[in-house]
Amino acid sequence: MKLMKPFGKQFNLTNGVIDGANNHWTRYLKDMRDMYQERETLNGILNSDNPLIYEVYEVSVPEEVGQLIQCTSIIYPGKIGKEYYMTKGHYHKKKSCAEVYLCFFGQGYVLLQTEDGRCEAVEMKRGTFVYVPPYWAHRTVNIGKDPLVFTGVYPAEAGHNYGSIEKVGFAKIIMEEQGKLIIRRNPNFKME
Amino acid sequence: MKLMKPFGKQFNLTNGVIDGANNHWTRYLKDMRDMYQERETLNGILNSDNPLIYEVYEVSVPEEVGQLIQCTSIIYPGKIGKEYYMTKGHYHKKKSCAEVYLCFFGQGYVLLQTEDGRCEAVEMKRGTFVYVPPYWAHRTVNIGKDPLVFTGVYPAEAGHNYGSIEKVGFAKIIMEEQGKLIIRRNPNFKME
Repeated sequence: MKLMKPFGKQFNLTNGVIDGANNHWTRYLKDMRDMYQERETLNGILNSDNPLIYEVYEVSVPEEVGQLIQCTSIIYPGKIGKEYYMTKGHYHKKKSCAEVYLCFFGQGYVLLQTEDGRCEAVEMKRGTFVYVPPYWAHRTVNIGKDPLVFTGVYPAEAGHNYGSIEKVGFAKIIMEEQGKLIIRRNPNFKME
Repeated sequence: MKLMKPFGKQFNLTNGVIDGANNHWTRYLKDMRDMYQERETLNGILNSDNPLIYEVYEVSVPEEVGQLIQCTSIIYPGKIGKEYYMTKGHYHKKKSCAEVYLCFFGQGYVLLQTEDGRCEAVEMKRGTFVYVPPYWAHRTVNIGKDPLVFTGVYPAEAGHNYGSIEKVGFAKIIMEEQGKLIIRRNPNFKME
């Protein structure tokens, strides 16, 4: 065991930027083209544009049991047709690993589901803490006019499993219809 | 394995209060009378008063591998003689467990040390993230005129070991001398 040295980093508690983050990802619409419901609308947008949907800053540490990874996510405001911008969503590879979220800015929902098809939506605004228990996949959706900014912490050995979500989607979708927020069953969802 | 249901709670990102916290602790000067350097000053204060030094709000979950505990700490401003108000400080019982801090308000330091006597101080202000690596004891010190407020996340199975810190103290102390902040070796510290 190599002893690590303690360290500090500066987080912006409004916009989520981490000074000196070890990793920084950007997800554009092209990176998640199979995840939205309205394929024609999506292809129309991609013909002339490839908007940034969200980005993630991460403080990385060795992927060992007992270590923790903290990151921030910024989901931009917008819709693909009626469906709000959202993250890809994933299970943890090590399914018994939980995750905690704390929202800094904006308005949204965390969509959570289990492999046996249970699906929950937890509302999120500035100051909301959300507990993602072991075994629940998690996706975050921006329902507001501003960026949705939150920080997450998870065990460093958790890993990400995007594959099954990419194949089967989430059981619920969050959309706007006639100016109203709707959470409804996803007609294209199927159990794996 | 009993499947947990996801849930949300509301954190105040300025004063650290958690609405619907499952646990809430208060630490008064009497609870930590052996931890400050200036015993005579401390006993003088306790003759007429027993000030609140810090409090902790916690979101609790089952103490199982993979689960995470999130809490907030509020350390009040003040000094016992020259030494600033601080938390008791502890090692994790399961020493390989890390902890992450994120500061919401105030100014302070995290003091960290290993069982072989290494000691580090990491500065903390609004937005500072501090990584407490596995095997490091951690104590937090308020050096400002306002409450120092931060949130922490740690593996639910980590546990707390206060005993060895109560016996041997931290290798460094943080104090004010002639209006200046001083971090110096603790003359009373001894290796266990």
